[in-house]
Formats: sequence, structure tokens, C-alpha cells
Amino acid sequence: MEPIDDRPSGVRSRRSFVVIGARATASPDFRLADLPGTSGRLDVLLRCVRAALLVSHGLRRDAVVYLVLLGGPVAPRTVRIDGAAVRFLRPDERSLALLVQKALAAPRAGDGFVEVRSGVAVVDGGVDAVLLDLGECTVYVLDERGDDLREAALAAQGAFVLGDHRGFDEASRARLDALGARRISVGPRSVHADDVVAIVSNELDRRDAAPGARP
Amino acid sequence: MEPIDDRPSGVRSRRSFVVIGARATASPDFRLADLPGTSGRLDVLLRCVRAALLVSHGLRRDAVVYLVLLGGPVAPRTVRIDGAAVRFLRPDERSLALLVQKALAAPRAGDGFVEVRSGVAVVDGGVDAVLLDLGECTVYVLDERGDDLREAALAAQGAFVLGDHRGFDEASRARLDALGARRISVGPRSVHADDVVAIVSNELDRRDAAPGARP
Repeated sequence: MEPIDDRPSGVRSRRSFVVIGARATASPDFRLADLPGTSGRLDVLLRCVRAALLVSHGLRRDAVVYLVLLGGPVAPRTVRIDGAAVRFLRPDERSLALLVQKALAAPRAGDGFVEVRSGVAVVDGGVDAVLLDLGECTVYVLDERGDDLREAALAAQGAFVLGDHRGFDEASRARLDALGARRISVGPRSVHADDVVAIVSNELDRRDAAPGARP
Repeated sequence: MEPIDDRPSGVRSRRSFVVIGARATASPDFRLADLPGTSGRLDVLLRCVRAALLVSHGLRRDAVVYLVLLGGPVAPRTVRIDGAAVRFLRPDERSLALLVQKALAAPRAGDGFVEVRSGVAVVDGGVDAVLLDLGECTVYVLDERGDDLREAALAAQGAFVLGDHRGFDEASRARLDALGARRISVGPRSVHADDVVAIVSNELDRRDAAPGARP
């Protein structure tokens, strides 16, 4: 099958990455000095933020990341970081952990995603809240048995959903299946979530650079 | 140009990544609580270690990473982490920083790379020491103006050299040019070093999975 680009020429993609942390803590009570041990592996999700939003000396203004936190008594909660509005985003895990910790601790009022600082918003909800927020958007699920990313038709407005090191929880998978989300794979090896984000971003960059062309 | 695979069928790649830290400290006196601010951006290099060596629930036994540390009074020094021998490698930045810190502080005796724990070795030297250690190997330099990775012939024994967020120092570049290293590019956007490693690894994984085939 030949690669397909179903976007009109000149349309840049707006890309969303939705990372589901099966046990990632939805509360701010984790220790920066032991992220993997105290946060339900929030570190996995934080690395995806860097891969999705940061490029050399700049931000991807066309990218949004959702961290779906399903761990702990206050779950589910989701942190949304929007490349179009976020400022002072640093690439190291500790800085990203501090940002998410502050976001989870910030007072909020209202339904839906509430912005707690520029470009960073939090909602009391999981995958359903994200799907509502995404609006008109084609949803893809990263899955080792899915179609090859390089040969898949990718919409200009795409949301890419991936699990953490434990894969998907059943409820999220069922919800995405019911939605008819397409399963795509980045390659023959099962790699870390942030590598998946980097590889998908690279494919989208290539298609953005040559709209209408076969990559 | 069509992608080329110049490896005999069935030969798996052995891949090396050489990351040059223009100011990354060659001594262990950095603070884990402020890696970006105290280590000459060693954090950039540490993230490359994860991308090069770790996959979901496992290690890439066919991969080696060299961190070339050119910062501070004891530079140059290089830390080599070999996927074939390293144990208990954790993906988070803090754990990787601790590993490199201990390696740099460990007593050593002898010339060349001295192993300070299983799979981790240190040498008092930079790019030249790495080239000597690599032996028979085709060297590629990651460069935004290089040939497209997807269309490049890639040797089974390849070493991929990349700079940190500051790019290459002049001496290293001159040394690699003199060697006739081929310049390759991962795509139209300039991305972080660890994303480069993830994208190159993905390309190699694809070729390993379909030896002789066009990816």
C-alpha cells in the first residue's frame, strides 16, 4: 500500500497526543527526587510532553498533549498542555514534573478544562473529557498490531492515543474501540511512549513539509 | 532515490550513537536537583541514553552509546554504555544522571576505555578515543542538511554522531569531515537529540525486520 496524504495542499497538521497513565497519580503528592517510585510512573508521561512539544530551540505551536492520570483516589484527572499557549517549557523531567505538580495543586473552579497557567489546563475526567475537548478530530490508537504509520492516511487534525509502559486500561480501550479509532503502529519493535511520539511527529513533519506528496 | 539496504540478508545491525556534549561536564560535580543548570546540559545526553538503549520492558542489546563530555577542566572524557553488558538501566533522567555521576567518580587505572561497572566504561578522551574504540564501522553524522535517513544506505555496523542542543564543536566536525563521515538528516524539522536517536533507531528496526527489502 502506498502512503496516502489526505490533506489538502498547504494545510498544516494540528496534532494532539493523548497519553494514558494507567497508574500515574492524579494528585500532586509525589516526590521530585523519586518520580518513578512515587508517581505511578508519571515520568513516562512527562517524557512524552517533551517529545510532543519541544523542538530544537523552540516549541511546536501546532501540538497539544493530554496526560490522562488514572492513578490514586482523586483520579481520573487530565492535564492538557497546549503548545500554542504554554510558556517557559523546559525539557528536563524534573522541570516538567514541577509544572504538572503545580498544575494538579492549583485551585480550580468550573467544569471542563480549567486553565491554571498559560497553556496548562486541568479537568476532573479522563478519556471522555479528552474526546469532548478534541472536538472534530480523527482519533488514532498506537498499537503494535496496527497499520504501519508510514502507510496510513493521516488527517490534518489527528489525535494520537497511547498507553504508558503498562499499555492501555480496558475501559479506555473499549471507549476508543467504540469510537472506531484506527490502530496504527510505528514499527516492528515495541518502544517507549516518548519514542512513539517522536516517530509520529517525524512522520507528520515530513507530510507537512511535502503536502500532497507521498513521503 | 529509493531506499537502499546494503546488508546481507539476516545480518542484524549493531548500532552506536555518539553524542557530543559541547559543554557537558566531564566531572561528577553536578547536582541531581538541577541537572540543566549545573552539568552543562548533561540532561540532553542522558535522554539519548534512554532512547538508544531502552525499549518497552527491555534493553537493546545491539546498541552502544558514547557520551562525549567536552565541558569543564578535566574534559575531554567519554562515558560508554553498552547495551550488551549493562544491567539495571532505568529510563528516568535522575537515575541515568546518578549512573553517569558514579561512573565519572569511579577510580580508574589504564589507558583506553576502563569499565567501572558492568557495561559502563570511561576514557580520558573525546571523539578520537571513540573512533578508535568503534573499530570497523561506518560513521554517519546527523546534520539537517544531510541526505534523508530513509533513503540512505545504512551499514550493518553504523555509528551515528550527533551534537547536543548547541550542535557540533568545530574540532569534532573537522575530525569527522576528515574521516569522510556521511551526513544524514532525520527530517524537515530540527529536533532534540533524543528524538533523533529514536527516529534513527526506528529506521534501523524497520530494516532489521525486513532485511534486503525496501523499507
